[in-house]
Amino acid sequence: MSDAYLSRGVSSTKDDVHRAIEKIDKGEFAGAFCKLIKDPYGSPDWCAAMHADGAGTKSALAYIKYNETGDFSAFSDIAQDSLVMNLDDLLCVGATDGFVMSNTIGRNAHRVDGKAIRSIIEGYETFLTKMKRYGVNITMSGGETADVGDLVSTLIVDSTFFVRMRRSDVVDCGNIVPGDVIVGFASFGKAVYEDKYNSGIGSNGLTAARHLLLSKYYAEKYPETYSPTIDISKVYCGKYRFEDKLPGSEQTVGDAILSPTRTYAPIVREALNSFRSEIHGMVHCTGGGQVKCRNFGNGIHYIKDNLFDVPPLFCAISENGDISQKEMYQVFNMGHRLEMYCSEKTAGELIGIAAKYGVDAKIVGYTEKSGSTLNAVTIKADGKIYEF
Amino acid sequence: MSDAYLSRGVSSTKDDVHRAIEKIDKGEFAGAFCKLIKDPYGSPDWCAAMHADGAGTKSALAYIKYNETGDFSAFSDIAQDSLVMNLDDLLCVGATDGFVMSNTIGRNAHRVDGKAIRSIIEGYETFLTKMKRYGVNITMSGGETADVGDLVSTLIVDSTFFVRMRRSDVVDCGNIVPGDVIVGFASFGKAVYEDKYNSGIGSNGLTAARHLLLSKYYAEKYPETYSPTIDISKVYCGKYRFEDKLPGSEQTVGDAILSPTRTYAPIVREALNSFRSEIHGMVHCTGGGQVKCRNFGNGIHYIKDNLFDVPPLFCAISENGDISQKEMYQVFNMGHRLEMYCSEKTAGELIGIAAKYGVDAKIVGYTEKSGSTLNAVTIKADGKIYEF
Repeated sequence: MSDAYLSRGVSSTKDDVHRAIEKIDKGEFAGAFCKLIKDPYGSPDWCAAMHADGAGTKSALAYIKYNETGDFSAFSDIAQDSLVMNLDDLLCVGATDGFVMSNTIGRNAHRVDGKAIRSIIEGYETFLTKMKRYGVNITMSGGETADVGDLVSTLIVDSTFFVRMRRSDVVDCGNIVPGDVIVGFASFGKAVYEDKYNSGIGSNGLTAARHLLLSKYYAEKYPETYSPTIDISKVYCGKYRFEDKLPGSEQTVGDAILSPTRTYAPIVREALNSFRSEIHGMVHCTGGGQVKCRNFGNGIHYIKDNLFDVPPLFCAISENGDISQKEMYQVFNMGHRLEMYCSEKTAGELIGIAAKYGVDAKIVGYTEKSGSTLNAVTIKADGKIYEF
Repeated sequence: MSDAYLSRGVSSTKDDVHRAIEKIDKGEFAGAFCKLIKDPYGSPDWCAAMHADGAGTKSALAYIKYNETGDFSAFSDIAQDSLVMNLDDLLCVGATDGFVMSNTIGRNAHRVDGKAIRSIIEGYETFLTKMKRYGVNITMSGGETADVGDLVSTLIVDSTFFVRMRRSDVVDCGNIVPGDVIVGFASFGKAVYEDKYNSGIGSNGLTAARHLLLSKYYAEKYPETYSPTIDISKVYCGKYRFEDKLPGSEQTVGDAILSPTRTYAPIVREALNSFRSEIHGMVHCTGGGQVKCRNFGNGIHYIKDNLFDVPPLFCAISENGDISQKEMYQVFNMGHRLEMYCSEKTAGELIGIAAKYGVDAKIVGYTEKSGSTLNAVTIKADGKIYEF
């Protein structure tokens, strides 16, 4: 791991955290993408999951955008980021309905006022209303906005989901087998359920993305948006301002980096309704990026040799040179943020479903035996081979 | 409201936040202490709640204690703070079992390492194991530790709870009636399920408590534990260091201010098992302190004329003079953090149950008609009368 990440106080592998929680049991389906527990309400046919995640340091960008332009809309999009980072993880165990969620917003009340909070809450409501139209029901219940200015310099927006589901509906990545194909679903573009073009960024790697893309102008104007523990040479050392055009794209850099995390919920819902038993596993390529799959399956070698062209935003992040191409694949989704594992025949059906929702999908690779009990990942792209 | 609080970036009433969420519906039991929703899994006899809260700025104290002494134990206690702020709110709707919880820890990885995270997780496990012995089952499922050093200067520890319960078991503060007595359960002392003496502090008002109690020494040594938006004259402007003896107490100031939030779960469980239908309402005196009850009931005048003697820690906070005695009652629990509303006869039974667990309880006041549709609170203490 290069220092592009660690020097900024972030570990994409979070080894120390994994050591801290290694004793915690894996739940009812040890191979599943999220931990599932016995039904807390006693039904032997059901299980449940609870899941926490948030928008990460993307909220610092929404804060800058508001201060630069007076436009609150970025706060609404942060709500979607915070939601989808949970929702799409839970999709990967096969849950597509019956979600309950709550949020936790921490703010410095000297810098973030009630209008920003209102915009975030409206962002939650807008997204939930939209998902309901696609048969994905999420009930928002409660939430806490805490004034913790001595901890949080601007604002942090986290969400937690609960879901209860039939055990027979669980998708377990432990069922991924050698010979599966990997269907990748594009993280970029404009789905029929999206209002604007999406750069594909998601909500991972935002610390690296922000500092590698954006110009020192933001360090000088908004010192509250970076940690003083980061060497100043690593802070906002890119060449762009929000309003600059992103090379190779119609978007500005600001719109691209603030693109709200795309959900795949409508697609996954329809895919599972028709092909649940054919889908061996689903992986949400969040922290760990294209190497995330390595955490799942048993003795699987994941070979990805037909990835999407890297979207312009990720190209702009890597052109800075402070992060290696290999590390880019470990931090960012690089073009698809959801993958499904199945037969080639089923793949065609899944790609067809994605097309109905305006989302590109294709076979991006396949699985083999790894030759040991461990998993491995090989990425072949741009004439290079990266082994993980 | 004096500026003791707002000048430090905290609003105990959070008016702007309440305006932001005022449109959100009140749920199935409009008068209940927490929002309850229809059962997401379709049973007409059940309902559910999801609840988020955290340790607030108390985590900055654990961080200081660790850096001063090398002692990790304060991180474990922070886990209890983060848990109990949720658990005891949910007790107040009558839920005492079948909880599922998740945590969200945000940290600056340059300052807070994996050992601290492990200590927090162990704190969660220890507390859950202890509660299980008292018949209060909480399943820990999932959790997220995010490296967000650009947002969080040290660490923030939040938890979210889900619970599903029978509608017939719900305790609804809307049933509080004129003529009830108010039973207060001490926040201080040493319950049979606690390992050490508890100052009674809970996890509210910690921003004020920290800055009013602790000496400028901590401002100079740990600038990462306060917001630069606070005027320096308001930062750590008390006279104490952690190791100083707290006047009127056997505790040090550090042990007192870091006392983990007491839960009342074992007591409430037993009280509800025997007297559920006799308990008209329960209030957890968190944000809003002794005035919190004003948010519940209809046309009720709450008269509190027999409060516990103010515990030494709260006396030390108020002696600074930067916060009025009236405001102290709005920010801190001042001696009891749980109250139950019932007849005088039932009160005697509840006080007896608390005694079995080593927790002082007594009738601290009573209710009358307020004479309008609004609620009011009168506190009579130390020969003074405070009207809210």
